[in-house]
Amino acid sequence: MPELLFKTGEGETRIFAAPDETLLAAARKANVAIDAPCSGNGVCGKCRVCILSGETKAPAPKHLTKEEFDQGWRLACETTALTDCVIDVPDIASAYRRRMKTADLSSGEELELFRSVGASLAEAGLGVDSGVSVVAVAMDEPVAGDGLPDNERLARAVQDALGTEDEPEVPFFCLKKLPGLMRESGFSLKAVVEEKGGRAKLLDVLAPDDGTPPAGLAVDIGTTTVAAVLCDLTTGEILAKASSGNGQIRYGADVINRIVEQGRPGGVARLQDAVVRETLVPVIEAICAESGVPASHIYKVSLAGNTTMEHLLLGVPAEYLRTEPYVPAFFAAAPLDPAEIGVRLAPGCVMTLAPNIGSYVGGDITSGALASMIWDSDGPDMLIDLGTNGEIVFGGREFLMSCACSAGPAFEGGDISCGMRATDGAIEKASIDRETMEPAFGVIGDTAPVGVCGSGIIDVIAGLFEAGIINGKGRFVRDGRRVVRDEFGAGYVLAFGDESGTGRRLVLNETDIDSFIRAKGAVFSAIMTLISSLGFTASDLNRISVAGGIGSGINVANAIKIGMLPDLPLDRYRYIGNSSLTGMWAHLTSRPAAEKLGEISSSMTYIELSTEPGYMDAFVAACFLPHTDGSLFPSVTGGAK
Amino acid sequence: MPELLFKTGEGETRIFAAPDETLLAAARKANVAIDAPCSGNGVCGKCRVCILSGETKAPAPKHLTKEEFDQGWRLACETTALTDCVIDVPDIASAYRRRMKTADLSSGEELELFRSVGASLAEAGLGVDSGVSVVAVAMDEPVAGDGLPDNERLARAVQDALGTEDEPEVPFFCLKKLPGLMRESGFSLKAVVEEKGGRAKLLDVLAPDDGTPPAGLAVDIGTTTVAAVLCDLTTGEILAKASSGNGQIRYGADVINRIVEQGRPGGVARLQDAVVRETLVPVIEAICAESGVPASHIYKVSLAGNTTMEHLLLGVPAEYLRTEPYVPAFFAAAPLDPAEIGVRLAPGCVMTLAPNIGSYVGGDITSGALASMIWDSDGPDMLIDLGTNGEIVFGGREFLMSCACSAGPAFEGGDISCGMRATDGAIEKASIDRETMEPAFGVIGDTAPVGVCGSGIIDVIAGLFEAGIINGKGRFVRDGRRVVRDEFGAGYVLAFGDESGTGRRLVLNETDIDSFIRAKGAVFSAIMTLISSLGFTASDLNRISVAGGIGSGINVANAIKIGMLPDLPLDRYRYIGNSSLTGMWAHLTSRPAAEKLGEISSSMTYIELSTEPGYMDAFVAACFLPHTDGSLFPSVTGGAK
Repeated sequence: MPELLFKTGEGETRIFAAPDETLLAAARKANVAIDAPCSGNGVCGKCRVCILSGETKAPAPKHLTKEEFDQGWRLACETTALTDCVIDVPDIASAYRRRMKTADLSSGEELELFRSVGASLAEAGLGVDSGVSVVAVAMDEPVAGDGLPDNERLARAVQDALGTEDEPEVPFFCLKKLPGLMRESGFSLKAVVEEKGGRAKLLDVLAPDDGTPPAGLAVDIGTTTVAAVLCDLTTGEILAKASSGNGQIRYGADVINRIVEQGRPGGVARLQDAVVRETLVPVIEAICAESGVPASHIYKVSLAGNTTMEHLLLGVPAEYLRTEPYVPAFFAAAPLDPAEIGVRLAPGCVMTLAPNIGSYVGGDITSGALASMIWDSDGPDMLIDLGTNGEIVFGGREFLMSCACSAGPAFEGGDISCGMRATDGAIEKASIDRETMEPAFGVIGDTAPVGVCGSGIIDVIAGLFEAGIINGKGRFVRDGRRVVRDEFGAGYVLAFGDESGTGRRLVLNETDIDSFIRAKGAVFSAIMTLISSLGFTASDLNRISVAGGIGSGINVANAIKIGMLPDLPLDRYRYIGNSSLTGMWAHLTSRPAAEKLGEISSSMTYIELSTEPGYMDAFVAACFLPHTDGSLFPSVTGGAK
Repeated sequence: MPELLFKTGEGETRIFAAPDETLLAAARKANVAIDAPCSGNGVCGKCRVCILSGETKAPAPKHLTKEEFDQGWRLACETTALTDCVIDVPDIASAYRRRMKTADLSSGEELELFRSVGASLAEAGLGVDSGVSVVAVAMDEPVAGDGLPDNERLARAVQDALGTEDEPEVPFFCLKKLPGLMRESGFSLKAVVEEKGGRAKLLDVLAPDDGTPPAGLAVDIGTTTVAAVLCDLTTGEILAKASSGNGQIRYGADVINRIVEQGRPGGVARLQDAVVRETLVPVIEAICAESGVPASHIYKVSLAGNTTMEHLLLGVPAEYLRTEPYVPAFFAAAPLDPAEIGVRLAPGCVMTLAPNIGSYVGGDITSGALASMIWDSDGPDMLIDLGTNGEIVFGGREFLMSCACSAGPAFEGGDISCGMRATDGAIEKASIDRETMEPAFGVIGDTAPVGVCGSGIIDVIAGLFEAGIINGKGRFVRDGRRVVRDEFGAGYVLAFGDESGTGRRLVLNETDIDSFIRAKGAVFSAIMTLISSLGFTASDLNRISVAGGIGSGINVANAIKIGMLPDLPLDRYRYIGNSSLTGMWAHLTSRPAAEKLGEISSSMTYIELSTEPGYMDAFVAACFLPHTDGSLFPSVTGGAK
């Protein structure tokens, strides 16, 4: 058996490869992270590694230039070792693992989204009101004749302090520390309590000088990115934020590949481990380090993900989500202690999952709908969440309907040869000079570009189209220094080797543009199908909230130019960021908001697009820049057909 | 550092002894079990080991004959090694560890006690009614158009089957197995549910052919012995029983020594580990093996112990129980998941502890009071629990009062040189021929005797007194083959070396008899103090239930002869076995009985004997055979003073 030595930015790992085992399969076994959005089907070309020594067997290169192939580059998913090999795993391939980010909240940009949602909710009567408070209690010291046990002494003092009807129960983990704590503190201490329906629940007891705020964690488990904020449950204040790529990515970029992998032997545990131990736990560690709040002070968790992500997170078999009749194990899971899935926070911590409403419209969307305020509007309004999938909510106070469109992972940089997620090195804004055809970029982290994320791709395609470099079909119709034609067809050079952060040329080619046009077509046709199903037209839309992790916000004007969003005045649009996360923050910090989430999810109807008459025609018609029916985009076409 | 090699019946263990470290201390570190009822204070003489090779340092022998000392016998607690040593740990010293007993329920003796309590409770309207049932549910298979999630499908079916108002919540651990189970079973399965206040709680989901009964565990955590029964929650039927010595014994025979040890660094965890991991977990393993019911099918636990035992079990600091003003951390602890203390049963299993009512009258007594039916009697009745401590409950339907007397561990064989617990090899019944002075024994397990347990000691002392071998002060006043006088004073040879199971002579000496007279005096004076505090006399007592682990029952006539129990007609007495355990069985299997336990504990008053006027005088007067006031025992003395 050939021995493989993987070299990554994190160190070296050796493993013996089984006969005919691909480098990707061996790497997974050895816990060496290699990005594989297509789950190793040889489709996406993202799992490229460089063979430094040794003999390998691989098919003719499809995603690699001849030059790259000659340099030793291979796709790990279709390469097997014939002899011992030394394999370099480039940073970009395993970067999702180290892309742990804690947000610099001082900039205020991140915070503004939460503040704005908080203000809107408060105006609607759903302001910060978690029911959690910290009460200082002073008790009489026991003396002969007053032998009240410690737990009853505390319970009585808390009841007195709160004026509740009953004494709270003192749970086991508080009981354990109570005798020592009471006597060290001279029978004065702080009780962390949660009021609920007139009753108080004791969450913790703390020393009187313990100033740590009682914390709650809001989490969004995205297919691509896991993000969390820690907040003070008494004030709602955000204490820290962190995010990371979802460790499940090496089992596929989209939910279908993940479900397939979960169905294999040991898959349920493997997928759960990837998102919990490899992703969520480090995110929480980062957030605790950043905020100085220990995990043992996190008393509540509100978490949202799409239906598949919530299943995989809990380790609940998800395979019946992708086979007829597409039945999930749950829409709303009973609250649980996160320790049950291996996340150790405060003992007795309660984790609530946002309810799903369909197999492909999940808790992230109900949570996002809460944050978007669509439920409080005269409407009709719309929420468009552009993540690995696209989901759309349409309606207002009177009705709410939703659908999912299989946009594919293009908005997260998947399916695009030079695509990447919105992290350091990603081109997130772009413009192209009509004359010189030269680009200008905004790159996350202000570094040389290593790839392009969703918002950047929209800008680039809009720029190429406006400059007449590509036509409505996405074909290159102009030549220049940056237009190249090679074995992958024509493409636009975003960065030459000496301009890029990797030393490799970054090219957006016709195949990439095709993928993206299909993705934007899926979104636009879904929007139109939803609107017209109730007899509305696009111009009836009052306010459109765009959410999702496609950068620090998309350029809506450009999105309209390429026919992705309806051609409406720009002031009807607003970018609301990760609305699943802000919704969970609201759920965590406001009991009335949590109740509202329940109402939203039980009233929202789900439209299955694939069975909706006319959807397929609408989709095909939308796979053009901006649209085969130019009259839908008068601001772009001047009204011409 | 000298290296010690301990040889036990279980194998060999090596450890280096720290300077001046006793053999007992080193053995504890090495996890070699040596019995040390006095917790290593050189008082009880139970930790004897034999030095096979090597030099040791030890004080002049106090509990050993010169012959034994010369043979190499030492007390581990007061001996240090000067060189490497090989040390034989005799079976009897570590026997408590291997005394795991599963009861042969076919004999019916054990079962009869439960049946009798069950019948009495049923008569009083507190029959078997745990609220737990197994319902078979058949669901419609999901089809297109019926995409109800698995958890809602199940919840609806269970609600239909039970006719409850609400659908039950499907907890996390059921959710995890639900998708697979439903589809493997063709959407038919068994639901284990608990009804409580009109609502159903889902405890488990099982395959339709799973015939395992839903089980509950009743546990008595005695200072000396831990006993448990497993029962079918739907019928109350006892499925298996097991018991074991409490692994905490090596830290002292009585609660005070255990509390002292718990207060030392790491003591809380050490004492908890000894009773949980070393004792309770193996007891449960034995009971599961015996019954064929896996631990994952145990859904409820009802557990009783004295106040200290309940604290130590939970790992809750107990030191304030022995320092003024003697305040426990709890009387009634909130129910908890046994997994929180390291006992893994069904996920979501709920363990309820019997409520304590005082620092020295614990849940074992409130549980025993429930089983004794004293609360249902016109009374006044009495419950006398003779364990490591003696506790007494006095009263009936109108009132219940209780007290504890520090009888010491004599009833469990402690404080007695040849004493042992009621397990194999223990003399549990005895008579002594008045003429020949020769003894006749009943020995547990029908083996040669290795020691004498509480019920046997009562018989022996009664026999010695009746035969005129000892006088009222417990001094030897007759000579014969079996009366010896050596460095420990006079004594009666229960078994010569060739008659005993150890090859060593078994002697009950005057010091032992003194200890026992003080113990029985403490019990009798407590009984009388309690009775007379309300102006009653002993003859008012209607029914006296004697409980406790002092053998398969004591000979009440003999106990009266030595002045331990009031001189009343024998038919007023009955032996009710381990009433703490039967009480917990009732608590587990009957919701009304559980409610009754709450009433009992909140209505029972606690008398602190040490502050009760007259108690010390009564105690001193009772330290005589049968009593300094002979008129209290007319059947023994013929009424003479």
